[in-house]
Amino acid sequence: MLNRVRSAVAHLVSSGGTPSQRPKSPDLPNVTSAPPAATETPKNPPARPGSEIGTRLKTAETRANFSRPTFLQLSPGGLRRADDHTGRAVQSPPDTGRRLPWSTGYAEVINAGKSRHNEDQACCEVVYVERQRGVTGASREPTRNQGLCFHYWGLFDGHAGGGAAEMASRLLHRHIREQLKDLVEILQDPLPPPLCLPSTPGTPGFSDPSHLVSPQSCWSPQKEVTHESLVVGAIENAFQLMDEQMARERRGHQVEGGCCALVVVYLLGKMYVANAGDSRAIIIRNGAIIPMSREFTPETERQRLQLLGFLKPELLGSEFTHLEFPRRVQPKELGQRMLYRDQNMTGWAYKKIELEDLRFPLICGEGKKARVMATIGVTRGLGDHNLKVCSSTLPIKPFLSCFPEVRVYDLTQYEHCPDDVLVLGTDGLWDVTSDCEVAATVDRVLSAYEPNDPSRYTALAQALVLGARGIPRDRGWRLPNNKLGSGDDISVFVIPLGGPGSYS
Amino acid sequence: MLNRVRSAVAHLVSSGGTPSQRPKSPDLPNVTSAPPAATETPKNPPARPGSEIGTRLKTAETRANFSRPTFLQLSPGGLRRADDHTGRAVQSPPDTGRRLPWSTGYAEVINAGKSRHNEDQACCEVVYVERQRGVTGASREPTRNQGLCFHYWGLFDGHAGGGAAEMASRLLHRHIREQLKDLVEILQDPLPPPLCLPSTPGTPGFSDPSHLVSPQSCWSPQKEVTHESLVVGAIENAFQLMDEQMARERRGHQVEGGCCALVVVYLLGKMYVANAGDSRAIIIRNGAIIPMSREFTPETERQRLQLLGFLKPELLGSEFTHLEFPRRVQPKELGQRMLYRDQNMTGWAYKKIELEDLRFPLICGEGKKARVMATIGVTRGLGDHNLKVCSSTLPIKPFLSCFPEVRVYDLTQYEHCPDDVLVLGTDGLWDVTSDCEVAATVDRVLSAYEPNDPSRYTALAQALVLGARGIPRDRGWRLPNNKLGSGDDISVFVIPLGGPGSYS
Repeated sequence: MLNRVRSAVAHLVSSGGTPSQRPKSPDLPNVTSAPPAATETPKNPPARPGSEIGTRLKTAETRANFSRPTFLQLSPGGLRRADDHTGRAVQSPPDTGRRLPWSTGYAEVINAGKSRHNEDQACCEVVYVERQRGVTGASREPTRNQGLCFHYWGLFDGHAGGGAAEMASRLLHRHIREQLKDLVEILQDPLPPPLCLPSTPGTPGFSDPSHLVSPQSCWSPQKEVTHESLVVGAIENAFQLMDEQMARERRGHQVEGGCCALVVVYLLGKMYVANAGDSRAIIIRNGAIIPMSREFTPETERQRLQLLGFLKPELLGSEFTHLEFPRRVQPKELGQRMLYRDQNMTGWAYKKIELEDLRFPLICGEGKKARVMATIGVTRGLGDHNLKVCSSTLPIKPFLSCFPEVRVYDLTQYEHCPDDVLVLGTDGLWDVTSDCEVAATVDRVLSAYEPNDPSRYTALAQALVLGARGIPRDRGWRLPNNKLGSGDDISVFVIPLGGPGSYS
Repeated sequence: MLNRVRSAVAHLVSSGGTPSQRPKSPDLPNVTSAPPAATETPKNPPARPGSEIGTRLKTAETRANFSRPTFLQLSPGGLRRADDHTGRAVQSPPDTGRRLPWSTGYAEVINAGKSRHNEDQACCEVVYVERQRGVTGASREPTRNQGLCFHYWGLFDGHAGGGAAEMASRLLHRHIREQLKDLVEILQDPLPPPLCLPSTPGTPGFSDPSHLVSPQSCWSPQKEVTHESLVVGAIENAFQLMDEQMARERRGHQVEGGCCALVVVYLLGKMYVANAGDSRAIIIRNGAIIPMSREFTPETERQRLQLLGFLKPELLGSEFTHLEFPRRVQPKELGQRMLYRDQNMTGWAYKKIELEDLRFPLICGEGKKARVMATIGVTRGLGDHNLKVCSSTLPIKPFLSCFPEVRVYDLTQYEHCPDDVLVLGTDGLWDVTSDCEVAATVDRVLSAYEPNDPSRYTALAQALVLGARGIPRDRGWRLPNNKLGSGDDISVFVIPLGGPGSYS
């Protein structure tokens, strides 16, 4: 993530001088985990969903070296080449050996020098969720006892260090698995989810559905909750628990920095695309573009952030104002009227400048340069628990949300051809490539391969990464139109929508 | 607004008994204003935009009778017929006499008995905004000194009394005019709006644009603010000032209750559609439907409300919880796990029921029965400053927003034919009529009239109101499909998009 965490310029609040560069975060030892077997069941189910996972996953060890996704199968020499900012060789899983599930294509490239290592991370897994027996207090269909599988893809774009992205790439799908455990039985049952479950799995008392109907339901009828919304809730809570785990373990394991997270869960015919940050997912179906995520930045989340600053002014200290101005207000403008926006407004109006308006605005800058508290350019993601305004103890984390927006795509609703794909990319791709350009590349590359050639999706991912990186020319990485290519880390997944097993 | 403010059932929180009916608000004397001439200029411009309007508009007098829009030109006998819940005669401006601007069509009908009078109000005006001289501190184009006109349509759907709706129908466009006064010169100038204005109109010092550029703009470049966003900001602030005026004057003039507000401002080629509440605006263009508003209800604003309750728990007292459950939690379910949604979630998950979860949920019910604090079914609008949870001193107003969402439609971007219209309706229309049904009625009615017959838009408004009201049959007002028609007040504007003067 290029320059997503900027040097904080808190001293400008008082001095109005030029910004100083915040020292770049050192590349810290990253955390890896040696998690328990995927099917392990906690002996005492947690009072709060997933609250125990932290302990179970805390068996992490500290490493000094940086890492790349294991599915790249990089040798020590390959790892060094992947870490070379000068050559910026595009990395993909080897043609030989086991393919990624669904013949998923993947490619990545390191940045042009903005951080010591590649701070993007990726994960692609098939995850088995064992059924938690007796969750509903009664065997709603006693013959079934199998678990569920979900397919999982994740892109994590780190900032201010690679620790958070690496931790998330190793653990987030396990949190999702834990959240789904209780739901296996419920998701396999065509009946609507029960509103209430006994406190301890296996405890009887709720086999009779009449127990679930309140006498008050006559005046306040119960809402119908779908299976789909349970999966969405499971993913949302998994993000929160992952973030909480980072908070708990950040000191012991030096998990510094934060990361954007874009993950896809395929479960029971549906794709759940969860995004927290400024990565992006789009589907190209029959040449048409279907957006599957939106970006969370100081500009798109302006009103949420301003409202928070308005309701909790203590979060702004005495340094910041929640009001937005088109530029920094100057002391000599006191008493004059300047354009402003409050948290309830989408338009602009003039207000008389008062002393408080001379504070630094909570949100400043535009586009890729927009910042919260002059520091961070992305407003959702995992980690960042230590992030503070420079020269201040003011924490920025309260303004950041770890919750993703989840969009659901029902694969069973359409007949997909081999050229229909879901493309996931970090902002390194999207900063220099439009949705339409991606769609054109999809068409160009896939039509050059046989429809049943499983290597076409990797070739497409590589073409997308190369197209965003450019080639070294005129003291920079340049695109064919001579504009600058992306100097950021770039990572891309291409997921064919033909369904599990169709092309593998 | 049918049953939009419900009997509060706070005692259920403690007793779990059946709900009692809150006594219906008596129909209070309404406020009218005798405003100053439209072109009057305040001698001392307000420190805060519009803060002085309250005083200037406070010359209101108290009336004991209910009223209907003046453009209906109702005689005393006509007023009585319009107030008849049994006959429910559809009211429109008379065919003779002056037409509404743009040959706008209008029709309304009173409710079937849910409140003593029709609590909807409407306004249609052409408003002249005099130019405030020297606002920018320099005559940017000295030869110009004319003001601006805007066309204005407003629908106000009152609840718990007609006072707020009537006050808004008489004053909101004046607040908009006041907000626009400072902008006349700026809106007429093709240059981008100045970021900063002198505190007192006419004060020199800002004629030189270089004064407007901060030396800090090198690190924080100034944002470009469009003319359009200034108009949006003016409308937003006008809504807030209208709401503040209601708060100030509610005791003196007994402006009780609240109202939804849906207004359209046509200015310099653009339609600004501002909505706060559950009325709706759609454009029918060449048979296609273009939504121009969205509804603000406990369901659509769930996350905003829950976040507020989470951040400011004192607003919930000890009676309410910000968490959402599919139905009321019962004491015997303590310790069990129930489905819930927190403010960050769109999906559902299970949580262990604790003592606090037995409180009444901040939001309960579904669809038209959804309520905030068991009381009100609409979450944006004007007024409601006295609204409290029944048997409690807990105010509901902090959860309500007076800010509209403003959508802009550029009339100059399209060639409009005489059958292209903007339809505004209170929820009495939309509760029983879909967008598609409205589009079909537009087609059916307008094709029965000559394109240049200006009475066709009134005929269309009447047809829409009649179609939503139905006819009396089987102990109720019924639609042709025998479903119940709307028993609510129904008000409809039909605005032809041919532009000002095209059909008048």
